[in-house]
Amino acid sequence: MIMENVVAGIDIGGTNTVVGLVTKSGEILKETTLSTRLETTFDGFIKILVSEIEKLLMTFEHDYKLVGIGIGAPNSSYDLGAIVDAPNLQWKGILPVCKEITKHTGVNSVVTNDANAAAVGEMLFGDAQGMKNFVILTLGTGLGSGIVVDGRLVLGSEGFAGEFGHIVAKPNGRQCGCGKRGCLETYASATGIRRTAFKMLADSNHPSLLRNITYDKLTSKFITEAAKTGDPLARSAFEYTGLILGTRLADLVAILNPEAIFFFGGLANAGELLLDPTRRYMEEYLFPVFRGKVKLLISGLQNKNAAVLGAAALMWKEL
Amino acid sequence: MIMENVVAGIDIGGTNTVVGLVTKSGEILKETTLSTRLETTFDGFIKILVSEIEKLLMTFEHDYKLVGIGIGAPNSSYDLGAIVDAPNLQWKGILPVCKEITKHTGVNSVVTNDANAAAVGEMLFGDAQGMKNFVILTLGTGLGSGIVVDGRLVLGSEGFAGEFGHIVAKPNGRQCGCGKRGCLETYASATGIRRTAFKMLADSNHPSLLRNITYDKLTSKFITEAAKTGDPLARSAFEYTGLILGTRLADLVAILNPEAIFFFGGLANAGELLLDPTRRYMEEYLFPVFRGKVKLLISGLQNKNAAVLGAAALMWKEL
Repeated sequence: MIMENVVAGIDIGGTNTVVGLVTKSGEILKETTLSTRLETTFDGFIKILVSEIEKLLMTFEHDYKLVGIGIGAPNSSYDLGAIVDAPNLQWKGILPVCKEITKHTGVNSVVTNDANAAAVGEMLFGDAQGMKNFVILTLGTGLGSGIVVDGRLVLGSEGFAGEFGHIVAKPNGRQCGCGKRGCLETYASATGIRRTAFKMLADSNHPSLLRNITYDKLTSKFITEAAKTGDPLARSAFEYTGLILGTRLADLVAILNPEAIFFFGGLANAGELLLDPTRRYMEEYLFPVFRGKVKLLISGLQNKNAAVLGAAALMWKEL
Repeated sequence: MIMENVVAGIDIGGTNTVVGLVTKSGEILKETTLSTRLETTFDGFIKILVSEIEKLLMTFEHDYKLVGIGIGAPNSSYDLGAIVDAPNLQWKGILPVCKEITKHTGVNSVVTNDANAAAVGEMLFGDAQGMKNFVILTLGTGLGSGIVVDGRLVLGSEGFAGEFGHIVAKPNGRQCGCGKRGCLETYASATGIRRTAFKMLADSNHPSLLRNITYDKLTSKFITEAAKTGDPLARSAFEYTGLILGTRLADLVAILNPEAIFFFGGLANAGELLLDPTRRYMEEYLFPVFRGKVKLLISGLQNKNAAVLGAAALMWKEL
């Protein structure tokens, strides 16, 4: 009997970590979720991760052979194979996640941030198959970006490329978690549109469904639903988000000339509500040679576990 | 006797075209300049170019063998091997410059814009030797940029990447030659700093050496000289240029994480007068992980014929 090769994809988040087994064709055979906060030491956490991979493999008895591990983690450096000073994790400093996980499993491993993983996932298993130049934006709590140029992930000189969420959208604008002000992600993200909606509630007298909900409870999903019912304030919030994001995407296109820009994550569920104004303003600010040519698309992995698929895709791409 | 290989580097500009023979080590053996407007037909111009290359080769009798031709030209597409709708040339439409020149010479040829050529020139013959990730800005009449990621030129899906001069520096700002408003090059270029100086002459009452010169005669060189003598208005013009350029370079660094950014062209002759404020504002707006790490440098080819060297370097890189 021939064992089929399989890669483990690991998505390490601030709260939860998901481990899955992914085939070469992008099928998640089985996955499991555990708390990232189970262990106080990083070493202890690695040991739990490895035992979870072994348990997943054992459920298939000897049908699958582990050939590599791909890891998506915040603030991680592909070149170093490490997580570096991640504000959302309880372990500080440089965490050599690849070295540790390879030591315990005997197979190669790679790490990158979730947006880079999403980019490779889109390229191997999603709607960017065949594309050589594209960008994916992950619109959740923040705005992450994964950039592919000429078929390869852009990592930069230290592996930290793709911080498109921290370009300056408004000098001296909204306070950002990174310590700066006016970063793009304070406007264009699930939390960004919430801030926009609340500013509009303050600035205008228009009645709105959003006036009956607290800041902490308001979600981009709620704003999306309100906009779909025609709530003018919710629609204005999307229009403003599209203005800020579209203008900056025009800059990104001028720099990189991509074929498409994919949208992934919570705010991407708004679909054309978000894409339509973003496209309009992007086109308005585009350098003439690029007009009408750049596709804005919802990720082909939008309703799948893209983080696990992307992390695994990164390893599959190397094998 | 063994003939040494040589590449012809051609720099096609709106007014003049320079043709040179360049060795593998980056030495320009001999070069010649001709008017780009000599011929009304593009075919006729190509024939003249080819005969100029032949004449250059003949001056060395049989010492050198032509092995390729690199061309730097405005609005050109590497992928198409063509110049496309160049506003500064008298021939319109798509000009298949590579196909034509190869037909007449029998050697391979490549074309790209002057900023991309400068990037490859810096990488092969300048101060970016050994660097894998960097950007070069050409600050002349406009602002061009050549981007290198992982040792390779970024061309984008249609070969038009690197239009950093046309990102939006100020929404509804200064009128740009491209038809948009507020493009970065209307602030950060040799003509951009002239516009800034004239705005400052209008807005302030400060005495300045610049009050005795017409708009058409004012050059970035004159502003540089005035700033060196301590002229406060000229110094303010550099400060403002650094603010606009530095802020946008912080964005570029967030996206690409380059090791260095090189400055080339007329305005780069200002040296630290330009680099110091640009660096200060860039650092202020940088995402924390990048602070103190990105080198801003004057091009190593600043006083050489970088356009011819760069065009030839592009061909040498392919050989």
